[in-house]
Amino acid sequence: MIDLNADLGEGFGRWTLTDDDALLSAVTSANVACGFHAGDPSVMRRVCDLAAARGVRIGAQVSYRDLAGFGRRAMDVPADELAAETAYQIGALRVFAQAAGAEVAYVKPHGALYNRTVHDAEQAAAVVEGVELAGGALPVLGLPGSRLLAAAEEAGLTAVPEAFADRAYTPAGTLVPRREPGSVVTDEDAVVRRALAFAVDGAVEAGDGTTVPVAARSLCVHGDTPGAARIAVRVREALTAAGVEVGAFA
Amino acid sequence: MIDLNADLGEGFGRWTLTDDDALLSAVTSANVACGFHAGDPSVMRRVCDLAAARGVRIGAQVSYRDLAGFGRRAMDVPADELAAETAYQIGALRVFAQAAGAEVAYVKPHGALYNRTVHDAEQAAAVVEGVELAGGALPVLGLPGSRLLAAAEEAGLTAVPEAFADRAYTPAGTLVPRREPGSVVTDEDAVVRRALAFAVDGAVEAGDGTTVPVAARSLCVHGDTPGAARIAVRVREALTAAGVEVGAFA
Amino acid sequence: MIDLNADLGEGFGRWTLTDDDALLSAVTSANVACGFHAGDPSVMRRVCDLAAARGVRIGAQVSYRDLAGFGRRAMDVPADELAAETAYQIGALRVFAQAAGAEVAYVKPHGALYNRTVHDAEQAAAVVEGVELAGGALPVLGLPGSRLLAAAEEAGLTAVPEAFADRAYTPAGTLVPRREPGSVVTDEDAVVRRALAFAVDGAVEAGDGTTVPVAARSLCVHGDTPGAARIAVRVREALTAAGVEVGAFA
Amino acid sequence: MIDLNADLGEGFGRWTLTDDDALLSAVTSANVACGFHAGDPSVMRRVCDLAAARGVRIGAQVSYRDLAGFGRRAMDVPADELAAETAYQIGALRVFAQAAGAEVAYVKPHGALYNRTVHDAEQAAAVVEGVELAGGALPVLGLPGSRLLAAAEEAGLTAVPEAFADRAYTPAGTLVPRREPGSVVTDEDAVVRRALAFAVDGAVEAGDGTTVPVAARSLCVHGDTPGAARIAVRVREALTAAGVEVGAFA
Repeated sequence: MIDLNADLGEGFGRWTLTDDDALLSAVTSANVACGFHAGDPSVMRRVCDLAAARGVRIGAQVSYRDLAGFGRRAMDVPADELAAETAYQIGALRVFAQAAGAEVAYVKPHGALYNRTVHDAEQAAAVVEGVELAGGALPVLGLPGSRLLAAAEEAGLTAVPEAFADRAYTPAGTLVPRREPGSVVTDEDAVVRRALAFAVDGAVEAGDGTTVPVAARSLCVHGDTPGAARIAVRVREALTAAGVEVGAFA
Repeated sequence: MIDLNADLGEGFGRWTLTDDDALLSAVTSANVACGFHAGDPSVMRRVCDLAAARGVRIGAQVSYRDLAGFGRRAMDVPADELAAETAYQIGALRVFAQAAGAEVAYVKPHGALYNRTVHDAEQAAAVVEGVELAGGALPVLGLPGSRLLAAAEEAGLTAVPEAFADRAYTPAGTLVPRREPGSVVTDEDAVVRRALAFAVDGAVEAGDGTTVPVAARSLCVHGDTPGAARIAVRVREALTAAGVEVGAFA
Repeated sequence: MIDLNADLGEGFGRWTLTDDDALLSAVTSANVACGFHAGDPSVMRRVCDLAAARGVRIGAQVSYRDLAGFGRRAMDVPADELAAETAYQIGALRVFAQAAGAEVAYVKPHGALYNRTVHDAEQAAAVVEGVELAGGALPVLGLPGSRLLAAAEEAGLTAVPEAFADRAYTPAGTLVPRREPGSVVTDEDAVVRRALAFAVDGAVEAGDGTTVPVAARSLCVHGDTPGAARIAVRVREALTAAGVEVGAFA
Repeated sequence: MIDLNADLGEGFGRWTLTDDDALLSAVTSANVACGFHAGDPSVMRRVCDLAAARGVRIGAQVSYRDLAGFGRRAMDVPADELAAETAYQIGALRVFAQAAGAEVAYVKPHGALYNRTVHDAEQAAAVVEGVELAGGALPVLGLPGSRLLAAAEEAGLTAVPEAFADRAYTPAGTLVPRREPGSVVTDEDAVVRRALAFAVDGAVEAGDGTTVPVAARSLCVHGDTPGAARIAVRVREALTAAGVEVGAFA
C-alpha cells in the first residue's frame, strides 16, 4: 500500500497554477499551500472543501514567507521565527479543513524549505517545533534520510518518507539537483515505470543505471507541471493494476 | 461588571508599537493582531504566552490585508474573500492561544474593517461568516447599534457592545470621526472620568454637553498611544475603587 | 489614427497571466504592471525589453497596493500616500524602460483605481499629483469624462480618452458595471466590429440599441482573457483594412 | 576628509524606527530604505525632501524583499532576479530624490544582502548588475575587501570602502559576527574614539588589542539604536575638532 501526494492550491488571488480539481481525483493526500509561498484564504477554503468531499487527506504545505520567489529562495530564518511561521500556517489551514469536516492530517515543507531541511538540522528542528506548537502530533513528510524526518522521529512524531516519481536519483539515493540536466523525468511512461518501481520494488534506477533502494510510504507527483493531473491518474491506475493499494498512510 | 480590552501585538518584524507587557497587566481582554495589519507569528506567539500566563482573555483582532496602511484603508473586499480572510486569521491565532493553554475567545475587527462594518451590512455579514467558518461560536465585539453586532446576533453569536473611553461621542451616540477636531480625548483625567461614566451610569457626555446612553459590556483603551498602559492602569484602578468589578465578559 | 493599448506583464513570480509576447505584436502601447497588483522586477524588465525591441510604447499601469486582490479592491488610500505610491511605481518601471533604451511614456491606473478615479476627485487628483511627482509631464490614459482626465488636464498634462472594444456601454456613454450580465462582450466578431465603430465613427452601440458618441484616442484590448492576443491581432488588422492608421497617440 | 553615513527612512506605514530628522543633521550621506526591508513611498518621499533640503546626499539602501525579517534573512535569490530587484528599488527612490531636486548618488546593500555580498561573488555581481541597470554609474558602498566592492570596481564603478564605529573587528579586519558577545560597541565614548581612529589613523583596535588597518572613505553610524542621533552628532563634532573634514565622498 502506498500514498500518492501532490501540491495543491498553489494559486494566489487572480493567479492559478495547479489543476486542483483534476489532481484531487487522483491523489490520496493533498499538500495544500498555506499562504506563504502560494494559496490565499479563498483558495485554501475551496481546496479543503473539495478534498474533504472526495475523502482526500489534507496536509499543510508550509513554506518560507516568499510569495515573490514561490518559496524557492532558501532563507536564513531564525529558528524561533521559523517555528512560529510554521505553526501559523498550520493553524490557518486547520480552520478550513475543520470547516470542511476534515482535519489537517500531516505537514510537508515546500520548495526551498523542503530542500534546506534535508541537511540543515537547525531549520529541521524549527519546523518540527512548529508542528508540535500546532498540536495534534501531526506526521511529517520528507526525504528518506533527511534531517527533517530525523527531527520528527526524535520528537515522537510519525516520519513519512516519500519518493519522487519524476525526479532523477543519484546512486546515493538523493535527488539530482534541479540545476543539473536530466534532473526532472519528463517522459510520462518513465514516470509511471518509476512510480511502480518505488511501490513494488522499493527501489529506483539511478542515473548510472544502478538500482538504489528507496523506502517510501508516499509518492509525490508534482502538481504544477503541464499534464500533471493526467500523469497522476496514470500513476494511480498503473499502481492499482499492479496490485498495489493506493491509500493514505496510516 | 465590565470588561477592559486593548489592541495588542501590533508590532511586525523589527517594528514594535504596543507595550504588550504593561497593557496585559491592566486589561482583561487582549485583541491580538493576526498578521494582516500587524502582528507576525513570533509576536502572536509571545503575546498569547503572556496573556495566558496572566489569565487575560485572547481575542482575534482581524483586519483587511493591509500592512502598508495598518488596516486603516477601507477596502471593497468581496464577501466570500473577506469571510475566508477572517477565518484564516482566527485559525492562525488559535494555534498560539492553544499552545499557551488558552483559546481564542472572541473576535474584534480592526481599524477600517471595524468602521466599515458599522454601516456596511454585506461586509458585516462576511466577517460573521468568517467567524462561523472558524468554529467555536465566538462572541463578536463591536459598536452598539452596528451592522456587525446585528449580524452576529442573527447568526446566534454573542454580540458584545463596547465603548471607547478616549473618543468623543455625538449626541446620537456614535463616535466623532477621527478627522474632526476633539475626536480623541487626550486628557487622562477625562478618559478615566468617561470610563467611569460608561461603567457606572451606562452613559457618556456628548460634545454638546448632553448625556447619551451607551450600553457597553466592554471598554476599549487604545494601546498604540503614548501613555496607553498608564491610562489603562488608571482606568482599572478607578473602576475598582468605584466598586465596579473588572472582568472578562461572560 | 488610433492607439491600441493592452495590460501586460501581469504575472508575479511563478505565476503568469498575460501572453506578453503575442500581445506586443499587436498593440502600440503596453500598460506594464509595476509590482503593486502584479508585475515583479524580472517581469517588468523582460516586458520593457520586448516592448522596446518592437517599438511598442511603454506606460506605467499603476495600482493600489493589493497583490491578493489583483488591484481590484477599491481602497480608501489617503491622498498623500496614493500620490507617493503612484510615483514609486512609475520610478521603478522607468529604470527598466530606460535600460531598454525607451521611456515610460504615459500612465494608466489599473482596476479599482481606474474605476474609482472616474468619480472620486480626491483620488484622481492624488494620482495626477503622483504623475507630476514622477516628472516628465506624462500623459494620462482614462475614461472620457472621468475625474482623472479632468485632473490631468487641470495639471497641464495630456489627457488621453480611451474606449473598450469588449465592454458594453450604457446609453449615457459609461461602462456597464462588470457585475451586470452582458457587461463584457465575448463574441470576437462583435469586439472587432465595435473597435471599428470607435475608430471610424467615434461611437458605439449601447445596450438599448442607441448609438452613443465616444471620443477615444486609444482602444483598450484586455490582455488577461483567453484569446486576448488573437483578438488584438484581429482588431489591428480590421482597423488597418478599414484605412485607420494604428499608432501610438502623440 | 571622511563621509558619515547612516540608514534612514526605516519605518513602514504606521511604524517608525529611525529618527530621520535628527540623523540628517549629523550625517553627510543618507542610506534611504527603498521599500523591500523598510521604507514605504511616503517615508521615502519625506526623507528625500529632508535630505535634499539639508544638502545631505541620498543613497539607495537596497535589500532582499523581506519586510517580515527586516532584510536580515539571507536569501538565495537567483542572480537575474536580484539584479532586477536592485534596479527596481533604485528607480523607485530616484523619483523622490529627483522630485526633491537631488539625485540618488550611491547604492549600499542592507542587512543580510550586505553581509552576503562580502563573500558571495554571484550575489555581489548581481547587485552590481542591478546598479548598472539603473544607470548613472552609481558608486557602491561596502566593506573593504568585499566581493561587492571588487565587483563594483570590475564594472568600472566607484567602490567606497566604509568602516563601522560601533562594531568590533577581528584581527583580520573583518567584523565580529553579531551573534558573538561584544560584537557591538555600546559605550558612546568608545564609539567616538573608534570613529576618530578610523578617520585619523586609518585603523581600529581589534578584540585582541592589536591595531588593524582599515582604509575607509565613509563611516557608518547606525540609525536604529537608541541614542543613534546623539552618537552621530558626537562623532561628527569629534571629527571636526580633530581637524578631519566631514563631507560626502567624491
